[in-house]
Amino acid sequence: MKKVYEFKEGSKQMVSVLGGKGANLSEMVNIGMPIPYGIIISTDACNEYFENDCVIPEITKDEILKNISLLEHETGKKFQSQKPLLVSVRSGAPVSMPGMMDTILNLGFNDFVAEKLNEILNNEKFVYESYARFIEMFSEIARGIDRKKFENIDKNDYKKRIKESKEIYKKECGEDFPETYKEQIFIAVKSIFDSWNNERAILYRKLHNIDEKMGTAVVIQEMVFGNFNENSGTGVLFTRNPSNGEDKIFGEFLLNAQGEDIVAGIRTPEDIERLKEKLPEVHTQLFEIAKKLELHNKDMQDIEFTIEDSKLFILQTRNGKRTAEAALKIALDFVKEGILTKEEAVLKVEPSSIAKLLNGDFNEESLKKAKFLTKGLAASSGVAVGRVVFDPKRAKIREKTILVREETSPEDLQGMALAKGIVTVKGGATSHGAVVARGMGKCCVTGCSEIKIDEIKKQMTIGDVVIKEDEFISVNGHTGEIFLGRVALKEAAFDTRLHEFISWASEVKRMNVRMNADTPEDAKQGKDFGANGIGLCRTEHMFFKEDKIWAIRDFILSDDGEEKINALKKVYELQKNDFLKIFEILDGDVANIRLLDPPVHEFLPKTKEDKEKMAQILNTTYEDIEKRIFKLKDENPMLGHRGCRLGVSFPRLYRMQGRAIIEAAWECHLKGIKVKPEIMIPFVMEAKELKYLKQEIKEEIEDLFKENNGRIDYKIGTMIEIPRACLLANEIAEVADYFSFGTNDLTQMSMGLSRDDSVKFLDEYRKKQIWEGEPFYSIDKKAVGKLVELGVKLGRGTNPDLSIGVCGEHGGDPESIEFFENLNFNYVSCSPFRVPTAILAAAHAYLKNKK
Amino acid sequence: MKKVYEFKEGSKQMVSVLGGKGANLSEMVNIGMPIPYGIIISTDACNEYFENDCVIPEITKDEILKNISLLEHETGKKFQSQKPLLVSVRSGAPVSMPGMMDTILNLGFNDFVAEKLNEILNNEKFVYESYARFIEMFSEIARGIDRKKFENIDKNDYKKRIKESKEIYKKECGEDFPETYKEQIFIAVKSIFDSWNNERAILYRKLHNIDEKMGTAVVIQEMVFGNFNENSGTGVLFTRNPSNGEDKIFGEFLLNAQGEDIVAGIRTPEDIERLKEKLPEVHTQLFEIAKKLELHNKDMQDIEFTIEDSKLFILQTRNGKRTAEAALKIALDFVKEGILTKEEAVLKVEPSSIAKLLNGDFNEESLKKAKFLTKGLAASSGVAVGRVVFDPKRAKIREKTILVREETSPEDLQGMALAKGIVTVKGGATSHGAVVARGMGKCCVTGCSEIKIDEIKKQMTIGDVVIKEDEFISVNGHTGEIFLGRVALKEAAFDTRLHEFISWASEVKRMNVRMNADTPEDAKQGKDFGANGIGLCRTEHMFFKEDKIWAIRDFILSDDGEEKINALKKVYELQKNDFLKIFEILDGDVANIRLLDPPVHEFLPKTKEDKEKMAQILNTTYEDIEKRIFKLKDENPMLGHRGCRLGVSFPRLYRMQGRAIIEAAWECHLKGIKVKPEIMIPFVMEAKELKYLKQEIKEEIEDLFKENNGRIDYKIGTMIEIPRACLLANEIAEVADYFSFGTNDLTQMSMGLSRDDSVKFLDEYRKKQIWEGEPFYSIDKKAVGKLVELGVKLGRGTNPDLSIGVCGEHGGDPESIEFFENLNFNYVSCSPFRVPTAILAAAHAYLKNKK
Repeated sequence: MKKVYEFKEGSKQMVSVLGGKGANLSEMVNIGMPIPYGIIISTDACNEYFENDCVIPEITKDEILKNISLLEHETGKKFQSQKPLLVSVRSGAPVSMPGMMDTILNLGFNDFVAEKLNEILNNEKFVYESYARFIEMFSEIARGIDRKKFENIDKNDYKKRIKESKEIYKKECGEDFPETYKEQIFIAVKSIFDSWNNERAILYRKLHNIDEKMGTAVVIQEMVFGNFNENSGTGVLFTRNPSNGEDKIFGEFLLNAQGEDIVAGIRTPEDIERLKEKLPEVHTQLFEIAKKLELHNKDMQDIEFTIEDSKLFILQTRNGKRTAEAALKIALDFVKEGILTKEEAVLKVEPSSIAKLLNGDFNEESLKKAKFLTKGLAASSGVAVGRVVFDPKRAKIREKTILVREETSPEDLQGMALAKGIVTVKGGATSHGAVVARGMGKCCVTGCSEIKIDEIKKQMTIGDVVIKEDEFISVNGHTGEIFLGRVALKEAAFDTRLHEFISWASEVKRMNVRMNADTPEDAKQGKDFGANGIGLCRTEHMFFKEDKIWAIRDFILSDDGEEKINALKKVYELQKNDFLKIFEILDGDVANIRLLDPPVHEFLPKTKEDKEKMAQILNTTYEDIEKRIFKLKDENPMLGHRGCRLGVSFPRLYRMQGRAIIEAAWECHLKGIKVKPEIMIPFVMEAKELKYLKQEIKEEIEDLFKENNGRIDYKIGTMIEIPRACLLANEIAEVADYFSFGTNDLTQMSMGLSRDDSVKFLDEYRKKQIWEGEPFYSIDKKAVGKLVELGVKLGRGTNPDLSIGVCGEHGGDPESIEFFENLNFNYVSCSPFRVPTAILAAAHAYLKNKK
Repeated sequence: MKKVYEFKEGSKQMVSVLGGKGANLSEMVNIGMPIPYGIIISTDACNEYFENDCVIPEITKDEILKNISLLEHETGKKFQSQKPLLVSVRSGAPVSMPGMMDTILNLGFNDFVAEKLNEILNNEKFVYESYARFIEMFSEIARGIDRKKFENIDKNDYKKRIKESKEIYKKECGEDFPETYKEQIFIAVKSIFDSWNNERAILYRKLHNIDEKMGTAVVIQEMVFGNFNENSGTGVLFTRNPSNGEDKIFGEFLLNAQGEDIVAGIRTPEDIERLKEKLPEVHTQLFEIAKKLELHNKDMQDIEFTIEDSKLFILQTRNGKRTAEAALKIALDFVKEGILTKEEAVLKVEPSSIAKLLNGDFNEESLKKAKFLTKGLAASSGVAVGRVVFDPKRAKIREKTILVREETSPEDLQGMALAKGIVTVKGGATSHGAVVARGMGKCCVTGCSEIKIDEIKKQMTIGDVVIKEDEFISVNGHTGEIFLGRVALKEAAFDTRLHEFISWASEVKRMNVRMNADTPEDAKQGKDFGANGIGLCRTEHMFFKEDKIWAIRDFILSDDGEEKINALKKVYELQKNDFLKIFEILDGDVANIRLLDPPVHEFLPKTKEDKEKMAQILNTTYEDIEKRIFKLKDENPMLGHRGCRLGVSFPRLYRMQGRAIIEAAWECHLKGIKVKPEIMIPFVMEAKELKYLKQEIKEEIEDLFKENNGRIDYKIGTMIEIPRACLLANEIAEVADYFSFGTNDLTQMSMGLSRDDSVKFLDEYRKKQIWEGEPFYSIDKKAVGKLVELGVKLGRGTNPDLSIGVCGEHGGDPESIEFFENLNFNYVSCSPFRVPTAILAAAHAYLKNKK
């Protein structure tokens, strides 16, 4: 049986015989790539070695040597000759496997070779350092000698260094350093075979269920030298511009140099175009190969090459890193050029990069020079540059402002809308500031706990730096970083290119992507971005505007009797109007409207002036207002008197909201506009809650139908956001028309982690490697995900056709979207500005799942 | 095959043939009880009826009539004769089954019978009302005629009433009312058989997996009349005194009366002793039978009897209701009398009644007359009478006070200790007031939201009632009720009787019952009550005392540097001292000590004076203290920066606590006192948290061991109180030496329900039948229990020997204790005053489980 192969004898398919590395190199040769040539000792040889009591049989040794001769012939070099051949020796199992032996470079060296090579290269330092490194690598990797033993050798006297290294080898191994290439090769090959059975490799195979009998191959490949002469060199190139995606080869090279020289930056590389003048034939060959590799790999390539004495060698090719802008252009171009299908192209742009395209980014050069101040939570993507203001009213006067606040509240809304960016000291990824900013598509960084605001002095300090009002700062909502002064912007927009690309993703995806839209403006925005209707309309957010907040405050703080009913009527009119406009914009798309779920305290007046105004409105005393506020205050608002608990306490409220929704829908219906209203009851912990409220709301709607003498279809569903609801989803599914997982609250309760308070300590958790990432961005699959999975299973167990969606922050996070795709969700929902990202992520998740 | 049985032919074992009711009646006859005699139509007859197309075969009809003759012979009466026999007809399936047909009384009536009976009883009203009721019952139950149809008949003219009833029957059924007893019996029997297949019964069988083929039996039993003549009568008796358990028959009777006459209360019954004079033979027979029944049922009996013409009939016997005091005495006496084993006796006292024995109760008579004011949550059992005070300082001056507060805080501690009882307007079953009161064994009612305190006027109002300071109120901590004025007390104590009884229960139980003890005094108390060591020592509660609270405030509010280290040293000394005393008291019992887990805000100074004092202590300004407090404030304290999160932020704190515990243990060890310290890390959501902190604490303890040149055993465990910890208990069990479920917090998070805020709306939930009970008293088995079960399963999956306990409020609740027994917990832990209850509950749960 054949045990050793030349590269050209192999193929991509022969992984089990040649190993992954060997098969790939064979493939490169097969498609005509000029790579450093080599031979592969097969996995069969490895198994034979073990069967033969860990001795390489003479017959195999002969076969190796025969192939070495072929290699010498192919390269035109000879081991330990006037034109000496040096090789790298690597292990290469059929599956990638950590714990196996590393690479040995420059095998073939001895004193004679060093001398000859120095004659050719005329670079004593390079030659002897290469030689010395070979001895160290060989000692460490093939013989297990601790590298530290070589540390104390004097590195300045080259020959002495070689001599002393060999003495250490002898002392450790009890034998002389092998001088002939044959000895060197057989020791190296044997040690690679042996490494198949080292402890780490065995453990790894056990853990990953890899067959012990698989064995490893050994790749022996020619070393080439870019510093061979003036007709030699080294370089890197991208097949397209990685910065903007332009279809033009982009790269640089250095003549008479090794790869390290480019990295070291001592000499300045030349533009790849200049190679045409220096080595025109190599240039032509290189550009042809570049295009060929791009086509072969169906992606923009990042290629390393070396030229040895006018001969081109491709050392490595891989898919090139690129900016979001470039990724988009390349994906679009590849489809136009017929290289990729739309489905394939969709996978070429990372969902996480869409935000940068949509909301802009900093200019990279300018960013490098910027003075970093502090880092908070990247709460809403985009970048902004502006003057610091601490009072939202200042944002109305000044142009281009960054609003910096301890935390934001509904009163700040107008100021927030006018500011370019928002920074808060407190608050997490789903605090008021973060949620509102994302809704506006405005850059926001929260939880900047290092910032200390002094409102009286009108300044803030970060460490030693004092920043006064009206000074410029730059805020990066993609990373959470804040910089001093003005960083240059790279503007961006939802242009036709992005629009086209997202429309392809939209065709590919399985799940619907809905939007979280609380106002007609949101709904318009999200619809333009391609949302499939509304997944969450928070009726309480409709009141987050200064002119409307008094109506809801009035309702919350009014007495239980007549006063509350009157307040409710006012609220009713405001709500119905908003619903009307939303239904008109949606024009037939579904609208899932959540009934009131405020942690009540978010709406209460906080300042003295506001409390006084409230007292006037309710025709009572300031003290009485304070008392009412105290009574309503929850110790733990997130676990308090909220959601459907308000509905149970004041069923009139939910009845009114149900009526407002359906009445608005009915009026649209009369105008010939299609409507698909869904009424969602939040914070359900028990099926009976839902049953009671559904009954109440249905009664009210039936009354309305009677008054109008006509009816329309509607659904009543529920949020699943309390762990208990997940655990009893089977019972709840008997009552609910649909489920919408509220994974923000579910995360808070499952983890015992308030989103507002966690900013205080989660950083320390990340530093101590107790926690990775941010559970309010990306769902904690291990535990919160387990509850979601259980909820889905139990819910669909009761009703196999149950429509299931998610409307928490996670609905816009690509990683979480993949998780929801795997659970066969019907839709995800996220803020309008995240809709394009979510569409692309849903497409990616679907395609991955299909595989 | 035999289809019909006389009572004397049956037995207890023949349930499948005679049904449950029939078999019991047979049994009564077999042990010689003089019960009204009867016959049973078997389930075989029922099945035969269905097989025979719903017709009773003639042969079976004959067998029924033959047995009717035997019944007539046995009773000395004859249907529709001069001495007329009347019977009741009842269904009786082998398992109790709602939805089956009800009872028909007085079957056998017709005009002739009515006339004859009136001649005997000389009571026209009684006779004709019985007759009319028979017609109505028969119409409704055997023929399904709506009872309302009979409502408008004139009830005054007896004969007319009978006539009109029969006319209604005829109109509804299309046939005459059956006048012969044979017709009446066969229609009744047929309708009972048919009712086996009514919808409710079928549904019930489906839901409970009951065999459709089982069928029902029919019991036909003689009616007897206590108003037959002056040698007749009726009465009830208890075989022992149900009030104090005294071994003396206790009861009353009325001559020439029916049972209703006793209930109606028109005539005053006589003491049972007087029967000796009136009917001495009956008296002797009755007393013999009473003792016999008590012995037979191995329990105190509540017996109903009727005497018809000097002949005694036992109508019913059942285990008698009794006070806690009586239950205890009877259980103890029964063991002494050799009737019960200790194990059997343990089951005769309800665990929930122990609190009344231990903490006292109101005198029942006095209670009946008391003016009810309002009802809150029964937060700590016992009763108290005292003068209302609103300021804890007043409790120090006045004697016998009831402290009424909006809510309590650590500053109120001394006042709470001096008050007889505590009432709070806010707060739930596990609020500060409730927890502290239970620790003190002091009566407490929380969440009395109807109380409005006016501290300036020094009064409170409940509805219209105004109660001024120093007025008396009475508080019932068993029920949550509050009364105006002074209700008389029934004092109680942990006397030798209770002690003996609990010691029996202690021998029987499988689980350990530990105590929640935060101070040496608690530990002493719990140990006296029989606790098996400490299941929860809350180190932060050690600071709930006025003199110590400044030390912990100092620590919390101090700067992160030197200041904090100094504060820590002070805390260290205080803690070590407490631990020393606790270990000494425990004397070898285990002590599970939880490291600091305050929702920090509970400790912060609230009043202006306190903040000023704090500023002085920390040598800073008032404004700075306010700032520091603001920074520490959690939006949602229950989900905030607490538990082991404090440990991760300030590892020095947990290291100090670990050292204090082990150093105290070591000093005891040197004195020859055995110690079993367990260090518990609270609020763990992730195994890595525990791993990190365990490592830190172990390092500190290893240092200590080195300093002391010696070591002792200790364990480091964790609380499982966050849903995520339940879901990932397998990972946490790899790091934890033991689990202690914190079901208070687990309930809060699983249900999204803050214990403090839920008082506001849970009442409405109960009113609307959305929720039953109080989830912080008794574990919500359906959902919270599911998480506990999962946690146990996953934890023991990793470590089959993992010790598992519970230390939340549920550890003292009998129903929850049963749940934990079923999950094979190693122990429950509760406040010292609940230990006896928990021991008994654990014994009950174990015995039930064994069955």
